[in-house]
Amino acid sequence: MSQEGLEVSPLAPAAFPNLPRVAGVGLATAACGVRYQGRDDVCLLALAPGTAVAGVLTQSQTASAPVLWCRRALKGGRGRAIVVNAGNANAFTGAHGLAAVERTVQATADILGAKKTEVYIASTGVIGERLSDDRITAALRGLKAGLHGGAWAAAAKAIMTTDTYPKGATRTAEIGGVTVTLNGIAKGSGMIAPDMATMLSFLATDAKIPAKTLQALLTRGAGDSFNAITVDSDTSTSDTLLLCATGQAKHKRVSGGPGDPLLKSFKAALFDLLRDLAHQVVRDGEGARKFVTIAVTGAASKRAARRIGLSIANSPLVKTAIAGQDPNWGRIVMAIGKAGEKADRDRLAIRIGGIEVARDGLVVPGYDETPVARHMKGQDISIETDVGVGRGAATVWTCDLTHAYIDINADYRS
Amino acid sequence: MSQEGLEVSPLAPAAFPNLPRVAGVGLATAACGVRYQGRDDVCLLALAPGTAVAGVLTQSQTASAPVLWCRRALKGGRGRAIVVNAGNANAFTGAHGLAAVERTVQATADILGAKKTEVYIASTGVIGERLSDDRITAALRGLKAGLHGGAWAAAAKAIMTTDTYPKGATRTAEIGGVTVTLNGIAKGSGMIAPDMATMLSFLATDAKIPAKTLQALLTRGAGDSFNAITVDSDTSTSDTLLLCATGQAKHKRVSGGPGDPLLKSFKAALFDLLRDLAHQVVRDGEGARKFVTIAVTGAASKRAARRIGLSIANSPLVKTAIAGQDPNWGRIVMAIGKAGEKADRDRLAIRIGGIEVARDGLVVPGYDETPVARHMKGQDISIETDVGVGRGAATVWTCDLTHAYIDINADYRS
Repeated sequence: MSQEGLEVSPLAPAAFPNLPRVAGVGLATAACGVRYQGRDDVCLLALAPGTAVAGVLTQSQTASAPVLWCRRALKGGRGRAIVVNAGNANAFTGAHGLAAVERTVQATADILGAKKTEVYIASTGVIGERLSDDRITAALRGLKAGLHGGAWAAAAKAIMTTDTYPKGATRTAEIGGVTVTLNGIAKGSGMIAPDMATMLSFLATDAKIPAKTLQALLTRGAGDSFNAITVDSDTSTSDTLLLCATGQAKHKRVSGGPGDPLLKSFKAALFDLLRDLAHQVVRDGEGARKFVTIAVTGAASKRAARRIGLSIANSPLVKTAIAGQDPNWGRIVMAIGKAGEKADRDRLAIRIGGIEVARDGLVVPGYDETPVARHMKGQDISIETDVGVGRGAATVWTCDLTHAYIDINADYRS
Repeated sequence: MSQEGLEVSPLAPAAFPNLPRVAGVGLATAACGVRYQGRDDVCLLALAPGTAVAGVLTQSQTASAPVLWCRRALKGGRGRAIVVNAGNANAFTGAHGLAAVERTVQATADILGAKKTEVYIASTGVIGERLSDDRITAALRGLKAGLHGGAWAAAAKAIMTTDTYPKGATRTAEIGGVTVTLNGIAKGSGMIAPDMATMLSFLATDAKIPAKTLQALLTRGAGDSFNAITVDSDTSTSDTLLLCATGQAKHKRVSGGPGDPLLKSFKAALFDLLRDLAHQVVRDGEGARKFVTIAVTGAASKRAARRIGLSIANSPLVKTAIAGQDPNWGRIVMAIGKAGEKADRDRLAIRIGGIEVARDGLVVPGYDETPVARHMKGQDISIETDVGVGRGAATVWTCDLTHAYIDINADYRS
């Protein structure tokens, strides 16, 4: 599982952004040798007392032990710590896996003086191997001592597996005239698909928002970000997205639900941050050379539009055509047809790179492939389709399917 | 779309089988230059008056013009001819596509003295380009003159697109002590996935079976053959499976439905023939180097078992692991988890190559990967899983995902 030889994705952002401190959040990382050698592989994110936590977890029927634990802890809506390790997913590890989570939670709670249900665990990496949780618990004291509000970049690096670059983003928003900060980090580059959150991502803000409202905002935001991306249609056993609100900012009290007008700016910033992080995950899709935006309109519902978009995004034939820079729109027609959602064959319209390719179920008269082929040579590919049956619309994002994906995945464990 | 340079799949059968004549069936092929040059690309399969026809067609919402026509013609349950062309799918071609089918049907009916609804059309190849049906209709007279009961191999070749070898199979059965013959040909190597039939396949028998019974038998047989295979999860706009019974054999009258005891041997032979052809399609999966059998037991229903099987079979991460000869059973766990069907994480069992790898949701004690790794180096890979919730069972077949798949599909049209 050596990551040597993996070049940074050509779609990577120029640099990791400068993430400011978030009041009430401390981070620390350590090299525990859970699997990787010579790099930090464990991260502790400590949260001030009173922090509200919301989460979206994988829908997998074979969810990992940490996911099962988070599902339980999220019921309380409170958090004091998140412990993350990379290299071993602690999935399909039976009673041992649950016990490993239990021990890590207990040790973290003891060291921080927190309740067990205020501790969240996330593990990513190989499935089916026992996690050496003793290496993690042994590092907790040192991690606590090293907590630091400015360690976001180190944290983003410590949670990486096959990622070729660390992922982070920051936004500010206003709540009743007071500026609040939102930071987020993410990891993930393969086994990325809905439902749901499709990787690990941790967000924190100093805003003070009730857990229930926070959860409603996160669920909605995930729908148009992490649940609208796919690299390879494979949903992980371990996908975890957590949003922590420390409540340290001195803004007016938010008493309403997610529709509270006070939250307008926060909501926009949160959704934008989630989308940014989700795009960064796609841009690090295993072997990705092109970032693809697929916008579907005219579907029976928003849900139908998303399913059609994901059918296009997950089609190996569409993805390889994009890799080959081939404007093979017939494969888009095929992928719409197989989505299992209503589409009117004779009203279908397709645009590639903004150029109309087909309308009313036919290639446009005098279709000139030249400008479309030129668009396909670029790094950012746009596909738009109207399926002609209703008003449902959704956008999804994916990457192409290249030889490098096979190189990475045909020999991941060796 | 030149097929030069495509080597014959290493999983191909040693030779095309010797297909005997089927009384009441004549075949002829011609080079019409619809797209390919220097090879036969059109096939006429002529059927004696009184032939019953059953069919299973793609479920795609963007089905091709020939599929729409076949759906209509199948209502009559009678057939005198099937006209097939390779190179152009006549899909997403709007009114022109329907008119092209109409003209071909009319010309064929005229030449054979048949009703229009006794003529079936199947087209395979590129989507979205106008079909030069004049080239096909111009060849009909010559095709009729060349009809021959022994031209099965030529027909199997004429319908190929990216196939690397022609596909055919034959069986005999007994109905009331009289021997009947079943022949079949098929084509397909990419865009192969349920539902449904996932390519073109034409079967003929001299048995005399009512159309309704024939349809019931074919529907059931397709479920455990063509609907249980996948190469790349992509369902074609053009998938067509037709079964013709000429009724020339002098056996006792079949008056019952598909459960008629008279049909026991026929049914077994038909199902076996369908499975053989379906396997041949998988063995020619684009870029395939390994043939993979996935048997799922313990599911909530047969349908659930098949969905879990297909989730494993369609997972790019499972398929690339197989290509890499890596017994990465964690990815099998992942694919079971994402199938959207019930599975008991803590009762899951997995066998690879007949060797127990995991049981009760855990790797087996003292697991030795050596013999499993040895199995993965072979050409025929077996994966068995019991998901521990019920008695539903199903088997599906697929191939691995290799660099060659990307080579073929990243530049199909050039």
